[in-house]
Amino acid sequence: MPNWLLPENIADVLPSEARKIEELRRLLLDNFRRYGYELVMPPMLEYIESLLTGAGQDLDLRTFKLVDQISGRTMGIRADMTTQVARIDAHLLNRKSITRLCYAGSTLHTRPSGLHATREPLQIGGEIYGHAGLEADAEIQELVLASLALANISEVRLDLCHVGVLRSLLELDPKAKVAENQLFSLLEAKDLPGLKALSVDFEPVLRQALLDLPNLYGDKAIIQKASEILPKLDGIALALNELEYLVDLAGTAKVTVDLADLRGYHYHSGVMFNAFVPGLPNAVARGGRYDHVGEAFGRARPATGFSLDLRELAGLMPIAEPKDAILAPWSVDPSLRKKIKELRATGHVVIQNLPGHENEQDEFECTRTMAFENGQWILKTVG
Amino acid sequence: MPNWLLPENIADVLPSEARKIEELRRLLLDNFRRYGYELVMPPMLEYIESLLTGAGQDLDLRTFKLVDQISGRTMGIRADMTTQVARIDAHLLNRKSITRLCYAGSTLHTRPSGLHATREPLQIGGEIYGHAGLEADAEIQELVLASLALANISEVRLDLCHVGVLRSLLELDPKAKVAENQLFSLLEAKDLPGLKALSVDFEPVLRQALLDLPNLYGDKAIIQKASEILPKLDGIALALNELEYLVDLAGTAKVTVDLADLRGYHYHSGVMFNAFVPGLPNAVARGGRYDHVGEAFGRARPATGFSLDLRELAGLMPIAEPKDAILAPWSVDPSLRKKIKELRATGHVVIQNLPGHENEQDEFECTRTMAFENGQWILKTVG
Repeated sequence: MPNWLLPENIADVLPSEARKIEELRRLLLDNFRRYGYELVMPPMLEYIESLLTGAGQDLDLRTFKLVDQISGRTMGIRADMTTQVARIDAHLLNRKSITRLCYAGSTLHTRPSGLHATREPLQIGGEIYGHAGLEADAEIQELVLASLALANISEVRLDLCHVGVLRSLLELDPKAKVAENQLFSLLEAKDLPGLKALSVDFEPVLRQALLDLPNLYGDKAIIQKASEILPKLDGIALALNELEYLVDLAGTAKVTVDLADLRGYHYHSGVMFNAFVPGLPNAVARGGRYDHVGEAFGRARPATGFSLDLRELAGLMPIAEPKDAILAPWSVDPSLRKKIKELRATGHVVIQNLPGHENEQDEFECTRTMAFENGQWILKTVG
Repeated sequence: MPNWLLPENIADVLPSEARKIEELRRLLLDNFRRYGYELVMPPMLEYIESLLTGAGQDLDLRTFKLVDQISGRTMGIRADMTTQVARIDAHLLNRKSITRLCYAGSTLHTRPSGLHATREPLQIGGEIYGHAGLEADAEIQELVLASLALANISEVRLDLCHVGVLRSLLELDPKAKVAENQLFSLLEAKDLPGLKALSVDFEPVLRQALLDLPNLYGDKAIIQKASEILPKLDGIALALNELEYLVDLAGTAKVTVDLADLRGYHYHSGVMFNAFVPGLPNAVARGGRYDHVGEAFGRARPATGFSLDLRELAGLMPIAEPKDAILAPWSVDPSLRKKIKELRATGHVVIQNLPGHENEQDEFECTRTMAFENGQWILKTVG
């Protein structure tokens, strides 16, 4: 086995791709900043208890485990940064007021989530802590759309859902409550035959609602339709009201509702959303409300946020054009060195041609060279 | 054990520190770019054979090992990115010409290198492949000084050394060659009694040279002194010539020579250097020539480079001042939302006050608010 071979679903990022990712990273972080989000950098590894707090079994199995030589305890490499940022809000910052945080960093997964999925997502995201109102959800959704716009992706569909619908329905029948995980998987797959089979003994009104859910997706009109055909429960009415408020607030953005799209159902607590873009079958960004995330760190407070994989998003953008550069000869001549320094200080890329070699770059195109004429160094356009 | 506790020598980076690190990261990467260095992003983990290729036992013990569920093979979390970047040059880019690469990313160490050292250095660095001449070393040294200047650290001492001196001396006596590792440690600690004891049976001329080495540090004059008192060997003469050339080229920068400072001796192949700054006992940046690094990937070619820990460097800078921000009320009023959008688009930080809460930030200082007066939203300075 050659030693340059990388593990499956692990890849190097070469210059032209790396530049796109770096530029997008800066655009997104700068945009977070203009919304008042403060950057934090949680560590790559933590004790496993901290990392998996409140998380499902899925995250546990996706997390690489290590033994800490110092303490003898088990540590994990983060597979997701959301819990880490919640820990920082709850324990380290511990502010009374609203806290807006953002982050960007590598995560690792033991197994890819799909055949071509990376095991090293470059997660970037933002979170608001301390506000239970829909204004926070609206701000996060605005941020998702703004982030995707910065990647020059205009054709975005934001798909809203709400855990309150299924949670309220399950209260109708203890048999359904027991089968929650199975139901959730069937709904996510919109598997009607499976739902029919599983719900055969459920309360009829619940069964009908479960069979209706997979068809309840579309534009705002779906909310009205859902309120007509779903059981008249307070939790469902509240959830539909919240969805309506957010759809209205989104204004010109393309927002749809999908009452059966319940990915993340286990740790979410209110409105959830997925952003879809052309060219990607799965959601490019996900988020929602998870008010219980800080509980395990001794401080439950309202929380809502989103994240996306920067590398995946950058992959949707066109290849970056090579940047204009100046090729300079190598010399100890102080006047040349001074001139090069000045050019670099004013933002130019100046590549010195080390003696005896040609240069080859895919990231820079040397359109100008430096030449010594009439006693001074001048720039000449390459013919 | 509370679940918010982090492992020893592992830390979160909170907002004011994170902003400094992010700003410094951009300054350094932009500067690399102006010198023509192309950014690459190697993965956090690789098969252990790739990561530890050509590396010493020290790096092996510092590298976290994991089992890959997919292949069953052992992977490692990178403890250093140098070998990864060499692999990219040798195998992926495989250019005939000179290649300049830079990188920035987290690394993890099983054990800290000192009591207060982090186990998660944020490594940033640059490398030139394909040029054996000293011009490449000079460029790398210039980049080190430019990087530290960008962190506002002006008082820098660049300490040069050369593996050729010790390598040539060891050729004089097979007994010394066998004790290479021990000698290297004693020289690094400038342990004269230890050197005396170990070298008691060595060739007298070698023994005297080994005892002289720890005193051969200082400014350029040391090179002349060394050429007088060290044995007249071709390898030593060449090494001293190279050091002299680089000291001369550094111009106004403070450059010293320390012939016994041999950290990295095992994988280096020519000039090495350490950069020291006030406030840090250990070198803040290290680098040098390691022409054999690509060999294991099927392509040995000249290589020289440097790296530093971005987090450590940022720690030497003063705390970042809070940034000016504008506090806006929350409202669905389209004219307010439009005004906020415009302000953000022109680079302002606008923080919306979610209903019922006060805001509290340590990264932003709201010096202005938005108020509705005479039918329009205006900015008012906070009194």
